[in-house]
Amino acid sequence: MDNSTAEKGSPGQEQQAAGVGILLQIMMLVLSFVVGHVLRRHKFYYLPEASASLLIGLIVGGLANISDTERSIRAWFNFHEEFFFLFLLPPIIFQSGFSLSPKPFFSNFGAIVTFAIFGTFIASVVTGVLVYLGGLMYLMYKLPFVECLMFGALISATDPVTVLSIFQELGTDMNLYALVFGESVLNDAMAISLYRTMSVVRSNDPSGQNFFMVIVRFLETFVGSMSAGVGVGFTSALLFKYAGLDIDNLQNLECCLFVLFPYFSYMLAEGLGLSGIVSILFTGIVMKHYTFSNLSENSQHFVSDFFHLISSLAETFIFIYMGFDIAMEKHSWSHVGFIFFSILFIAIARAVNVFSCAYLINLVRPAHRQIPSKHQKALCYSGLRGAMAFALALQSVHDLQEGHGQIIFTATTAIVVLTVLLIGGSTGTMLEALQVVGDGHDAHLGEGFEGNNGYVPTSREEDETTGNKLRMKLKEFHRSAASFSEIDRNYLTPFFTSQNGDSEDEEDDPMPSSRRGIYHGHS
Amino acid sequence: MDNSTAEKGSPGQEQQAAGVGILLQIMMLVLSFVVGHVLRRHKFYYLPEASASLLIGLIVGGLANISDTERSIRAWFNFHEEFFFLFLLPPIIFQSGFSLSPKPFFSNFGAIVTFAIFGTFIASVVTGVLVYLGGLMYLMYKLPFVECLMFGALISATDPVTVLSIFQELGTDMNLYALVFGESVLNDAMAISLYRTMSVVRSNDPSGQNFFMVIVRFLETFVGSMSAGVGVGFTSALLFKYAGLDIDNLQNLECCLFVLFPYFSYMLAEGLGLSGIVSILFTGIVMKHYTFSNLSENSQHFVSDFFHLISSLAETFIFIYMGFDIAMEKHSWSHVGFIFFSILFIAIARAVNVFSCAYLINLVRPAHRQIPSKHQKALCYSGLRGAMAFALALQSVHDLQEGHGQIIFTATTAIVVLTVLLIGGSTGTMLEALQVVGDGHDAHLGEGFEGNNGYVPTSREEDETTGNKLRMKLKEFHRSAASFSEIDRNYLTPFFTSQNGDSEDEEDDPMPSSRRGIYHGHS
Repeated sequence: MDNSTAEKGSPGQEQQAAGVGILLQIMMLVLSFVVGHVLRRHKFYYLPEASASLLIGLIVGGLANISDTERSIRAWFNFHEEFFFLFLLPPIIFQSGFSLSPKPFFSNFGAIVTFAIFGTFIASVVTGVLVYLGGLMYLMYKLPFVECLMFGALISATDPVTVLSIFQELGTDMNLYALVFGESVLNDAMAISLYRTMSVVRSNDPSGQNFFMVIVRFLETFVGSMSAGVGVGFTSALLFKYAGLDIDNLQNLECCLFVLFPYFSYMLAEGLGLSGIVSILFTGIVMKHYTFSNLSENSQHFVSDFFHLISSLAETFIFIYMGFDIAMEKHSWSHVGFIFFSILFIAIARAVNVFSCAYLINLVRPAHRQIPSKHQKALCYSGLRGAMAFALALQSVHDLQEGHGQIIFTATTAIVVLTVLLIGGSTGTMLEALQVVGDGHDAHLGEGFEGNNGYVPTSREEDETTGNKLRMKLKEFHRSAASFSEIDRNYLTPFFTSQNGDSEDEEDDPMPSSRRGIYHGHS
Repeated sequence: MDNSTAEKGSPGQEQQAAGVGILLQIMMLVLSFVVGHVLRRHKFYYLPEASASLLIGLIVGGLANISDTERSIRAWFNFHEEFFFLFLLPPIIFQSGFSLSPKPFFSNFGAIVTFAIFGTFIASVVTGVLVYLGGLMYLMYKLPFVECLMFGALISATDPVTVLSIFQELGTDMNLYALVFGESVLNDAMAISLYRTMSVVRSNDPSGQNFFMVIVRFLETFVGSMSAGVGVGFTSALLFKYAGLDIDNLQNLECCLFVLFPYFSYMLAEGLGLSGIVSILFTGIVMKHYTFSNLSENSQHFVSDFFHLISSLAETFIFIYMGFDIAMEKHSWSHVGFIFFSILFIAIARAVNVFSCAYLINLVRPAHRQIPSKHQKALCYSGLRGAMAFALALQSVHDLQEGHGQIIFTATTAIVVLTVLLIGGSTGTMLEALQVVGDGHDAHLGEGFEGNNGYVPTSREEDETTGNKLRMKLKEFHRSAASFSEIDRNYLTPFFTSQNGDSEDEEDDPMPSSRRGIYHGHS
């Protein structure tokens, strides 16, 4: 829409150009879906759907770049960060929360938060410092320190889409899945927050920056967003419980309202200056756990399918869009050194992040819940960079002065393309090499965790190593987690849902199991 | 998105403003749905959902206008014609075609096309000439003749949303419903086409305008768009027949592709410079008739619910959006005379359109299929103006010179608000007064027509009035229509669908009837 005001042709032509642009996008979407389907059917894991979409975008973008496409059509393919943050990202994150099985997520919550907050912070700082030192040592283009930290923050946002789809396809360990998933979703929020904080620090008073304030501000954002998300989720649960919309002829109203709530949560958080991603993630979790069971049966089927559809479309579209924009944008390829060293540095930063956090977590975890070394390696390997890093890099082109923003953008672009194609293509091989494939594939998600699958089940008494004080705290936390599920069963579920029993009762519903199986198979 | 490039604040603030803007919009949407639900539950037909949405938009817009809202938030509420034409209109028109019962529509196709093409043309010219004469006689502001015709064209686009929802609620005669529906959908296409033609005439050579060329160009557009729409529909039918996507775990892919096709059709037509509305309407009809039955059962349920949901959201949003924009825009209320006389003139033009076309149609129809006088009155009364007229008027502000566009826009705004509130509110009363309510309410839509309900069933022999030659042609057309349904049964349906029999066979599917009933109840 940008160019409509800038230079206005005849309105008919304007709309025709828009039509051609959108038509191309739809054709690429259809092509991606078909290619992805064919690849998956032949179990060809070296080119996952996301990589295929990215390649399609790159190829079509390259062709459009060579041929002399009209400016008004090209305008439809420029990657707008606003469009990404306001319309493409929310459905994906909501679907992540909505399709999440809460038990493995919450039982690993401490570890996930450690990786996402502390780990991302470490990774950002390590990357930033290394890039700054590299600049000082004339290895690469020299950027100011704050800009190095901004680059470190934006490049630390890992992408959940590709790796998780392969994880699901191959069926890995539940706990590993929860770790990778939780880390990549929450570290997006951390990366945005760090990036914006640095951006504020840079534009305001560069001397008065307070290391402590950054962390406090992030925690404020995180807790505020989480509360907003959970609050919206609980409100929706109560609304659907008491409004009595689960009558047959009101399903349309029911579905409309249900579909609007997540977006409401996202925009509420953004409007309050908090993190919409964190908010919508928790709204997704709460709505699945409480609100969902207050819907009529048909609406339940419909909304799960709906969010699945919308998030698939958004995911595929993001990769196409990114590929197309990468092929169309101007890049300053002269800084090959910068790209090479930043790839090296982010690999180092990723390793420091994962292994140091895993060490800390293993210190406080009982022996039967230690994160095994192969899971650490898998987690370290899964750190591919995607749309979030790309969108923030594009923003940095506006934020920073001409040359600096361009360098960061080009480096990020190269990193995104390389990691999506290389890591995305080799994740299957890596998972098989690390022998984390196949566990818990057929097991029911919610029950998989109780069996401790993947983690060595040892007795609780033999853990007599260091860190006793911390371990006591952890046990306390464990007790409180156990009592949370009791509170949930005894108070929250009865209060927020129209069912009297706990969620296990849902299995007894009168729907034939075959039909239920079909619905669950694709949602 | 417009203002993001114009004046860029901090990116965080920018996004925060967007968040607040969208948040307000979601809240108004939720409010509209709830208010609409409450009104419908209490059978209060004086304020239909569309009027309620318009009022909510007007009130919130007025409040935002009084209070000093930030400019960046307000930017999210400006009505963008492009957004309307590219994203809000397509789902509504597709849903119209998709939910259409083809028999009453095609059996009245001749009448509908007469009303839509010939009638809209008459209405546009009559309005344009009257406004021009009014200007000459100093009754109202004097506009150039071409601009009068542009105003006539844009104000002749009647809105299907409000009246049809009341028709459905009250359950009117099938044929009347088909007439009102078909006319209002097709005349949008006619109005756009006329408006654009006039716009081209105006900007090019005002002397070389050829009355005949306008009609030829419109017919070209219409036939081209229809072919494109039908072609895309048939392609989709073949794709879904042979791709073998109706296996359980491919439903997501199936739904994604099915959802993309209509939009593809719309953009294809727009990209070719044709009418996307006409194209997507016919794609909807074809996809429902052929493609739909090639889907797996779960996907069938899902896509009908999906399109229903999306179109409800778009419909409600359009009225809110329009209300808000009306409250926020600058209007030149000094031209009350212009508004008063144009309301008078469009009422005259509407009457001329409906009664003259009905006279022509009745001339060629056999006596048992005459359009009764009460149906003509109902059709004449149902001509409320909505979003299409509003969007074109907004475009005219850009197209015409400052003062002229403003006058047209203000007059259109006033006409839209008045007709939506007055006609929308009184349609129920009008239908009851004309005694066209209640017929065919419970009858199955497809079968309702066979019974000739609403039209006096007389014998076919007694029609011995004027216009014999034309009537012979009509009978031929009827025979060809009958043979079309035979071709459909014997060739098209077997070719394009995976079923062997005709559509009646669908009733024998193994799904329990209670479940089917629920799904059909709300889709």
